[in-house]
Amino acid sequence: MEKLPEHEADDHFHDECGVFGIFGRTDAASFTTLGLHALQHRGQEAAGIVSFDNGQFNIERHVGLIGDTFTKESVIARLPGDRSIGHTRYATTGGSSLRNIQPLFAELDGGGLAVAHNGNITNALTVQRELQRQGAIFSSTSDTETILHLVALSKEANILDKFSDAVRRLEGAFSLVALTSKKMIGCRDPLGIRPLVLGDLDGSFILASETCALDIMGARFVRDVEPGEVVVITENGIDSYFPFEKTEDTKFCIFEFVYFARPDSTVHNESVYAVRKRIGEELAQEQGVAADIVVPVPDSGTPAAIGYAQSAGLPFELGIIRNHYVGRTFISPTDHIRHMGVKLKHNANRTLLEGKRVILVDDSIVRGTTSQKIVSMVREAGAKEVHMRIASPPTMSPCFYGVDTPEKSKLLASRMSIEEMEAFIRVDSLSFLSIDGLYRAVGEAKRNNEVPQFCDACFTGEYPTRLLDQGGSDNVRKLSLLTSNS
Amino acid sequence: MEKLPEHEADDHFHDECGVFGIFGRTDAASFTTLGLHALQHRGQEAAGIVSFDNGQFNIERHVGLIGDTFTKESVIARLPGDRSIGHTRYATTGGSSLRNIQPLFAELDGGGLAVAHNGNITNALTVQRELQRQGAIFSSTSDTETILHLVALSKEANILDKFSDAVRRLEGAFSLVALTSKKMIGCRDPLGIRPLVLGDLDGSFILASETCALDIMGARFVRDVEPGEVVVITENGIDSYFPFEKTEDTKFCIFEFVYFARPDSTVHNESVYAVRKRIGEELAQEQGVAADIVVPVPDSGTPAAIGYAQSAGLPFELGIIRNHYVGRTFISPTDHIRHMGVKLKHNANRTLLEGKRVILVDDSIVRGTTSQKIVSMVREAGAKEVHMRIASPPTMSPCFYGVDTPEKSKLLASRMSIEEMEAFIRVDSLSFLSIDGLYRAVGEAKRNNEVPQFCDACFTGEYPTRLLDQGGSDNVRKLSLLTSNS
Amino acid sequence: MEKLPEHEADDHFHDECGVFGIFGRTDAASFTTLGLHALQHRGQEAAGIVSFDNGQFNIERHVGLIGDTFTKESVIARLPGDRSIGHTRYATTGGSSLRNIQPLFAELDGGGLAVAHNGNITNALTVQRELQRQGAIFSSTSDTETILHLVALSKEANILDKFSDAVRRLEGAFSLVALTSKKMIGCRDPLGIRPLVLGDLDGSFILASETCALDIMGARFVRDVEPGEVVVITENGIDSYFPFEKTEDTKFCIFEFVYFARPDSTVHNESVYAVRKRIGEELAQEQGVAADIVVPVPDSGTPAAIGYAQSAGLPFELGIIRNHYVGRTFISPTDHIRHMGVKLKHNANRTLLEGKRVILVDDSIVRGTTSQKIVSMVREAGAKEVHMRIASPPTMSPCFYGVDTPEKSKLLASRMSIEEMEAFIRVDSLSFLSIDGLYRAVGEAKRNNEVPQFCDACFTGEYPTRLLDQGGSDNVRKLSLLTSNS
Amino acid sequence: MEKLPEHEADDHFHDECGVFGIFGRTDAASFTTLGLHALQHRGQEAAGIVSFDNGQFNIERHVGLIGDTFTKESVIARLPGDRSIGHTRYATTGGSSLRNIQPLFAELDGGGLAVAHNGNITNALTVQRELQRQGAIFSSTSDTETILHLVALSKEANILDKFSDAVRRLEGAFSLVALTSKKMIGCRDPLGIRPLVLGDLDGSFILASETCALDIMGARFVRDVEPGEVVVITENGIDSYFPFEKTEDTKFCIFEFVYFARPDSTVHNESVYAVRKRIGEELAQEQGVAADIVVPVPDSGTPAAIGYAQSAGLPFELGIIRNHYVGRTFISPTDHIRHMGVKLKHNANRTLLEGKRVILVDDSIVRGTTSQKIVSMVREAGAKEVHMRIASPPTMSPCFYGVDTPEKSKLLASRMSIEEMEAFIRVDSLSFLSIDGLYRAVGEAKRNNEVPQFCDACFTGEYPTRLLDQGGSDNVRKLSLLTSNS
Repeated sequence: MEKLPEHEADDHFHDECGVFGIFGRTDAASFTTLGLHALQHRGQEAAGIVSFDNGQFNIERHVGLIGDTFTKESVIARLPGDRSIGHTRYATTGGSSLRNIQPLFAELDGGGLAVAHNGNITNALTVQRELQRQGAIFSSTSDTETILHLVALSKEANILDKFSDAVRRLEGAFSLVALTSKKMIGCRDPLGIRPLVLGDLDGSFILASETCALDIMGARFVRDVEPGEVVVITENGIDSYFPFEKTEDTKFCIFEFVYFARPDSTVHNESVYAVRKRIGEELAQEQGVAADIVVPVPDSGTPAAIGYAQSAGLPFELGIIRNHYVGRTFISPTDHIRHMGVKLKHNANRTLLEGKRVILVDDSIVRGTTSQKIVSMVREAGAKEVHMRIASPPTMSPCFYGVDTPEKSKLLASRMSIEEMEAFIRVDSLSFLSIDGLYRAVGEAKRNNEVPQFCDACFTGEYPTRLLDQGGSDNVRKLSLLTSNS
Repeated sequence: MEKLPEHEADDHFHDECGVFGIFGRTDAASFTTLGLHALQHRGQEAAGIVSFDNGQFNIERHVGLIGDTFTKESVIARLPGDRSIGHTRYATTGGSSLRNIQPLFAELDGGGLAVAHNGNITNALTVQRELQRQGAIFSSTSDTETILHLVALSKEANILDKFSDAVRRLEGAFSLVALTSKKMIGCRDPLGIRPLVLGDLDGSFILASETCALDIMGARFVRDVEPGEVVVITENGIDSYFPFEKTEDTKFCIFEFVYFARPDSTVHNESVYAVRKRIGEELAQEQGVAADIVVPVPDSGTPAAIGYAQSAGLPFELGIIRNHYVGRTFISPTDHIRHMGVKLKHNANRTLLEGKRVILVDDSIVRGTTSQKIVSMVREAGAKEVHMRIASPPTMSPCFYGVDTPEKSKLLASRMSIEEMEAFIRVDSLSFLSIDGLYRAVGEAKRNNEVPQFCDACFTGEYPTRLLDQGGSDNVRKLSLLTSNS
Repeated sequence: MEKLPEHEADDHFHDECGVFGIFGRTDAASFTTLGLHALQHRGQEAAGIVSFDNGQFNIERHVGLIGDTFTKESVIARLPGDRSIGHTRYATTGGSSLRNIQPLFAELDGGGLAVAHNGNITNALTVQRELQRQGAIFSSTSDTETILHLVALSKEANILDKFSDAVRRLEGAFSLVALTSKKMIGCRDPLGIRPLVLGDLDGSFILASETCALDIMGARFVRDVEPGEVVVITENGIDSYFPFEKTEDTKFCIFEFVYFARPDSTVHNESVYAVRKRIGEELAQEQGVAADIVVPVPDSGTPAAIGYAQSAGLPFELGIIRNHYVGRTFISPTDHIRHMGVKLKHNANRTLLEGKRVILVDDSIVRGTTSQKIVSMVREAGAKEVHMRIASPPTMSPCFYGVDTPEKSKLLASRMSIEEMEAFIRVDSLSFLSIDGLYRAVGEAKRNNEVPQFCDACFTGEYPTRLLDQGGSDNVRKLSLLTSNS
Repeated sequence: MEKLPEHEADDHFHDECGVFGIFGRTDAASFTTLGLHALQHRGQEAAGIVSFDNGQFNIERHVGLIGDTFTKESVIARLPGDRSIGHTRYATTGGSSLRNIQPLFAELDGGGLAVAHNGNITNALTVQRELQRQGAIFSSTSDTETILHLVALSKEANILDKFSDAVRRLEGAFSLVALTSKKMIGCRDPLGIRPLVLGDLDGSFILASETCALDIMGARFVRDVEPGEVVVITENGIDSYFPFEKTEDTKFCIFEFVYFARPDSTVHNESVYAVRKRIGEELAQEQGVAADIVVPVPDSGTPAAIGYAQSAGLPFELGIIRNHYVGRTFISPTDHIRHMGVKLKHNANRTLLEGKRVILVDDSIVRGTTSQKIVSMVREAGAKEVHMRIASPPTMSPCFYGVDTPEKSKLLASRMSIEEMEAFIRVDSLSFLSIDGLYRAVGEAKRNNEVPQFCDACFTGEYPTRLLDQGGSDNVRKLSLLTSNS
């Protein structure tokens, strides 16, 4: 009996990582645990925490949810110290390989260095091949290990300069949190593709992917780490450096607003919930249709559905109920039952839907398999008409910046017209938000087609960096699997 | 480090059980697994499944969620057969005592009998003492074992008559599903306090606590099992008996509508979601207040909040975001952090709430501890005013019919006036739905104070049965703890 | 991949149980853990401990070795009190059914009663059928539950009389340790088939299957509990009762000396090690053969081999080395490897055996499968001649007194002549000890064929009791499987 | 409650590792599992296996015994391929750090390389510091990682030359088994301190620490890998190289004969059992004493006790019985019981010992704590005299070649005279084997004090290599702890 393939179970793009760090606070690892719990939506497969105390780095890596693994007293007891960083991860490859759980740690000439990374380095393999030719050994398949090597090999004199030297060699998306015995370092790539925020808990600095990781512990949001900025936190406070060539032309990932970030987070200085509601409003303006009720596909479609309903003057109703007890590892018991179309995760609110013209609002369509099931369920419950409204433009291209996406040929919108998609998912009508509508929702007048204000490559295919590792025969990373237990 | 006391973690009444059975379908235990998964909200602590196959009863009992325990291939493989019943349970006592996990099973003179029970037998201890004096031995502390003894000791000739004989001895609330080698039996107490529905999956009969357990597998809802009815399902079909004295005066638990049942279920012939929305509408009519937005305490307050917002013409907004990754076993890592007011489960949607007059809608208040935290969080997020509206009357009295409630002295409403409660939870105003408003929401003109149409003892203190075990010194059941692992 | 069938893995009769109890000593359950650890050889499948403290019985049951399960702090912490009994068990049926792990416990009219049992009640099914017809329910398949019912149903006034009343109804072998809130009771059947000893730890009384359970904690051996004796231990000391008809004609199991008991134990007032050495001496006298070395099949054949070597004046040598890391659950990794004749447990000491005439000494032969493998291994290592000497007579008949034996048709000696067995296990000669030789080793002049001094039914087929349950169609006990985990 | 410190539980030197590899055999990892099981005595803490199949290395690392971890179907299924190496390890540092479980694996310029190591590289830290200064990063604290770096950094053209280049840089003891996609490599340091044997299973080559790992699967012993030899096994067969300067002056560890190797193994071309018996004979000749019986401290003292008894003409008797169910993780339940002198592992055979003059034979004394307990137990059992005879010279100095030994100041013999030791362990007499006696037992006329034939540094303090890492402040390796589970 197999685990349901992730994309059948949940037809979404998946952000691969969340990062967190705190410096100068007793029981730092406990706070890291809380922070990673708040960032759990950015990666549910595995997590790791490093702390430093009394001359020694302590490292724990566990497969599973934070709330199941890092909350054990024995685990936390092995992570003493007042400085700690952590990482939660979505496994892009089949196995849950412990070797790749971050933060990665190594002993360098100058002492230990731990690094946690959200994003993807698009020239990591190219650099790795070059380093291997010089005699470097790689014990993980993570692009993060490349960073450790670059720091170790830098000819600069001190760790900060080595670190800056190293990150200048990188291309792609990287929001990094690193820890040495004396410093916590945060860094965002010059385009600022992935988020990274700076917070403050009664005088202790925090770095985190999203503000919700500050809220959980009552920490104050200070500001975003800037694109291209390196912040260095020590016992003496915080310093800021800009080791990259300056560019005004940043490229925050617009899909963070569509789906990745939590609705209660503020990223790129915008409330995610507010943006999603505006997306729903734009969608109602652009793609209105006569209907009786507006129903979200829970939970990711809910804010846009509220915005849609308010803008359209239609009732917002919970026509689909989500069973929150279903974990991602639920296995339907036997094959013949699995293929019955069992409703493990969602159930239609039959009494409500019967005889109604329904507008279904979802955040995006990837392969379309979940949409098919949802629509079929809504129709069986007696809906008279089903109109699907998608709170983003069609996703046409894979992401190479730290998001797990299927290859282009499996993206529904890249292989079907709107009409074909309507037939495939069996709706009366299907509409997507326009790219300009999406830009309006995030506060722009429209997309600047010359110099887009965001990374929107998944919608437009326009990648803001070159994709060095994608050329040649190295473009599929060979993985040597390593698993372990305690 | 201790597990958070349940009532701190989640300040609600808790239904103690869900029951499910299916007869005449290959892989019956797999369907029972699905059914119990859909009923997981009725009891998350432990579950058991019995199947019968080839002359033998097979029994599995596990502590934990269905999706974590019964979905293992090895577990399901030990439960062959085309007839199966199951039970999911909320532990009312401290330990997760395997001995009390239902269905209970015993070998009787006429063969094996398994029983799963939702409710509480209010004369169980009294009967148990009497049976012990006659030489009966009890190996669990469950009132369900009393039923097994009564069946075994009945002088009637066949299992059906023995069963009828036994249930006539019982007082209180009981929705039972039982299995012998040849029969599946369903039974509801004459007052029909707890729900039990009859379903049909392509010709195989199903018994379940709620209709959502039918929906998950695409089964058809046939009808409620009637109060006082015994249904007997065999290979020849279904028969119906009424072994109790007839009464028109039934007493369905009105709190099932307020909180216990899933919103997508139909119980007592009413859509739970529709009733909850009407509750919100009644609340808006009775307890309106000037405000900017209506915010539910998720997830249980959501349908009432939608009804309230629609009725009041105010925007419905997600002002509180729930972290669905938090399990009930999440332990905050260290004591001093636990007492920091960590927001493991809920976070305020700060940008939305800032400067607003907020109507918070929750389904009920038990101890008030969660409400205090929620309100404090909403205030810290900048809300200008907080008005709390509760979608039920004040809960004043404990339940003795299969619901876990604190003793009377710990119920906030039984020890404080409205004004005191407003001060305690620090809101600008607090209002509850009236008892008549609640009756209107479930379709009655008003409560018939002579002969109430529902059991509403938790609001009114009027219990529809005598409470025999509550008298005398036997009213606290002594528990001998038994735990095990594999 | 299957677990190796037990009898392939280890071709022995298996005692089914060890029992232990201690009264009046703080942390009684910790001592019970130690006692059961010393008795682990009497049952490795599962164990249970009951303690009584502060008005409440506490029960833990676990599958696995004592040293792996009951030594966890959390487990011991759930077993407070100064009185405790325990049981370790060899599962006779396929599953490791938690339901059957002893001690069994029930609430009776007069309070709780826990019972741990070593032996087998040969009329248990017959009594169970009769009790079921009177309305008793059975929740285990253990014969021990019958005892609980008989106590509960006794018309006597107090627990001691009820207990005596109950055990008088039993036939077969039973060494019992029972616990009520105020008393620890020990009882041996009138024939004294299974051992039970009384010990003293600084004034606290102990009951245990063997003296090695006293030694482990430095307790003093007081005396055997007598056949037919009931001892009752309270805070006031110990009392002794003889509720059965007196008989001088007791029947201690002679196989306890051959294999079951630990060599460092004293049972039936004889040192087990000394008896086994005398067995080896008798064997050398009766069945001498010209050879170079005497080699035990470790570990059970070792004392007899030492006795043989000393008596024969031949060198005792470790020609077979046992790998003590192999647990009983070792699974050879893949089928084709399992069938290669992998030597997981034993290895030949090649250099020693090469070119030698070897006398192999083993305690008994059951199916002969292990002997075949051992001999083949010794031959491959270069032994010139292999003479097998068995330290007991041929085992011809199954045991019905608490020992797991294959049915008669699978016992090698019951279906082959000595010559056929020699060919089957491929030895140059095979000899067994005579029945009189065995009696001499335990201190008798010879077997009294009129009234045998021991139970030797496995060698002679003469059972000292009737075997009521073996008649009729009830002779195979139907098992309803119940398993659980925590 | 703490785990018993290893040296209290078992007062022995501990070999740190066993290695195994097989090339060219379907299901290679299954055979590696068997081989490691046979080598379990060389390291019980954790184990790892690497296999190569279909372009990919597969790696599993687990804490615990082989029979508990690597025999799971799911684990073996993740290790496909016809070439595999493995390692079993005794943790020298407190934690069971997964990071240090071997084989270590890294991707190098030329492909993947896995290395398993038995021994200790005495200049590893010195080399590591040098490599770190050149920019190398270290992710484990194992000296084995140094080897991977040296191979990666070698300027030689092919893997074999790189490997030879690397091992020439190493000092100390190293028996290595390495795997690339196309080759299995075995290597012994020029002094041949640790054993490594070559075997053959129907045409597939095997490398293993001891011959018992060949016997378990019926493989043929071919020969020892020579000191200073590198063997390279490919699909074309085996090649042999000698990259080190030639020396006749090898230094096999003489303690392998005393305790480390299994008695059924042949190491350094001698039967371990035969050597141990000769040790016992020498001991009887050198240190005879009037007594009634010779009793081994089981199991390690048994062969020497047999030799002693045969030489002295005294009866060999099992005066101490070992409980083989006790694992190394047995925790005595509560503190006050732990300090009672509980006999978890050994019990005296009271009846046998009473009134006797006893010669106790043990293999060695490290701290003396176990000897104290054993002697006390034997005296309490009634022995009249206790004479302890040790089957090796006094251990005076720590080992730096892959053996876990306490520091010099904790070795009993380094801080007490014989008379003081006699008083400390409370024996009537204590004698050790002379160093020449030990050399005679392994076939030499006497120790050549100019050029000792073996490494006997633990007895003599004469180390056969310089100990580079022991100088300066780097001599304590700082450990960053990393633990994980699945």
